[in-house]
Amino acid sequence: MILAADIGGTTCKLGIVDNDLNIIKKWEIVTNTEDNGTHILKNVYDSFVKHLATVNLKIEDCAGVGLGVPGPVDFESGTINGAINLNWHGKINIKSQFEKLSGLPVYVDNDANVATLGEKFKGAGRNEANVVCVTLGTGVGGGAISNHQLVHGATGAAGEFGHITVDTKQRFACNCGKRGCLETVASATGVVNLTYYYYEELQFETVLKDAIQEKSLQAKMVFDAAKDGDEFALYVIKKVAKHLAFAFSIISVMTNPKYIIIGGGVSRAGQFLVDHIETYYKTMTFAPAAESTKIVTATLGNDAGMIGAAGLIKTYVMEGNK
Amino acid sequence: MILAADIGGTTCKLGIVDNDLNIIKKWEIVTNTEDNGTHILKNVYDSFVKHLATVNLKIEDCAGVGLGVPGPVDFESGTINGAINLNWHGKINIKSQFEKLSGLPVYVDNDANVATLGEKFKGAGRNEANVVCVTLGTGVGGGAISNHQLVHGATGAAGEFGHITVDTKQRFACNCGKRGCLETVASATGVVNLTYYYYEELQFETVLKDAIQEKSLQAKMVFDAAKDGDEFALYVIKKVAKHLAFAFSIISVMTNPKYIIIGGGVSRAGQFLVDHIETYYKTMTFAPAAESTKIVTATLGNDAGMIGAAGLIKTYVMEGNK
Repeated sequence: MILAADIGGTTCKLGIVDNDLNIIKKWEIVTNTEDNGTHILKNVYDSFVKHLATVNLKIEDCAGVGLGVPGPVDFESGTINGAINLNWHGKINIKSQFEKLSGLPVYVDNDANVATLGEKFKGAGRNEANVVCVTLGTGVGGGAISNHQLVHGATGAAGEFGHITVDTKQRFACNCGKRGCLETVASATGVVNLTYYYYEELQFETVLKDAIQEKSLQAKMVFDAAKDGDEFALYVIKKVAKHLAFAFSIISVMTNPKYIIIGGGVSRAGQFLVDHIETYYKTMTFAPAAESTKIVTATLGNDAGMIGAAGLIKTYVMEGNK
Repeated sequence: MILAADIGGTTCKLGIVDNDLNIIKKWEIVTNTEDNGTHILKNVYDSFVKHLATVNLKIEDCAGVGLGVPGPVDFESGTINGAINLNWHGKINIKSQFEKLSGLPVYVDNDANVATLGEKFKGAGRNEANVVCVTLGTGVGGGAISNHQLVHGATGAAGEFGHITVDTKQRFACNCGKRGCLETVASATGVVNLTYYYYEELQFETVLKDAIQEKSLQAKMVFDAAKDGDEFALYVIKKVAKHLAFAFSIISVMTNPKYIIIGGGVSRAGQFLVDHIETYYKTMTFAPAAESTKIVTATLGNDAGMIGAAGLIKTYVMEGNK
């Protein structure tokens, strides 16, 4: 058995998972961010013990604990460098703290990486050795798996797909301080950015007009309008798809994944978005790479992070990877 | 001891290497491409046996044989799919052929990957877990190492940095059938492409004028002129550097290597080229990634492939990676 938690700012998603990463039991607890979030790990531990008892198991029956956390992680030491949503500040060694609590091996990674590992093992990645997950939410994040292992890079900055420069006109400022990042044109925020931009430039007739003028537009409204045949919304979505296709074409020649998995809220646009991306992707991409890569949407939803956190134990404890 | 060969169209570079990848003995043999290159592997094997005897060793004293070959390799099976320079056509299982000849474990990879592995172990990569090598020659190739292992990807198309689209104007056709690839503006051919292009557009005064008009220009002449202060040549080199910096900025956010190693003939331009790339790279790149990545030139020259081929045995036989 493996214990796993996807620790978020509002709730922690917890689970008991078997060695094949099938969920035996899953539940949630509220994240208590009081007192600089110092209660969080203890609350997770106590909840594990309580729920293990309900299935007649003890902590000692488990091979390890995998934790996903919402912040930058130094994977080797298991140290997080701040997590605003958890009220954690500065460097905190989560791995050693939870090893002391539990007496078990603990592995910690950031939420985007564990979600990628979850999709790799039990979701759209179909357990392939080489997969990439690009998460389109408020921002754009993701993770890359090569040779069955997460790629962290020299300092954990690998898989930062949101900061690939794709908008050569550099129209929008990114939170990172640069301009033109994928995040500025393909996240939920990016879809809204482009819609405002093109509405001003082109003055199309569109059902989105009121929301645009009231500045209350949301990405989902643009996708819904495009699916319903609104010409302007479709124009914007094609621009979004083209930027994503460009990023995917680069991902393909760099790590040549079997699957590029689209996750996050924007991925709910589903096959409609994939189809538009693929149209551009096929013409843009080095043929030998394009032939072997399939663009798909994530399948695990909110379970991805928890299953992937358990996947850390499978990868690094049970299979003994370095 | 490890046996290693970097098999090229003109010569095969052979070596006996110790377990720390230090060269005990190295030599070359002429590549006999007659009869569809069917003599090559036997000639390499015979030469190994002969040279082992001179240092009082036998085949059985060796842990394995690493081979670098100039063509696309399916790494798992050790099959090459054609190698024009060797007169090899169709799929040939090099691994199994050489295992039969030698009775030893054999690993085979393409020349760009083994050169990357060589630089990783004993060259500019200083044995870091995450390094990328970008080879600037007639074309642009390379290799990526993440978590100490070469990234091959789903079908061996990983590390094809030459086909990252960087020239948004798409001015030059690439051998791959696309336009705008890094290879069209940053290989030796690319430097010449840009020089002709900007000379026609700008009509600068330049010492390169005669060579441009005679269409006898070579990349080295452009670098030499730029170093000597020729304003036009410097203009061109800055454009080359900017395209490379863009590609490097993407490599950095994707795999976050500790070193981006520039190899190949164009890398002889040395620190002059690195300095110009860095100027652009620093402003273009996601800061957390840029801070941890250093751009350097390769240090092993022609030995990189042979040392890296030996590195395959160290990685996959001795250290037991999958």
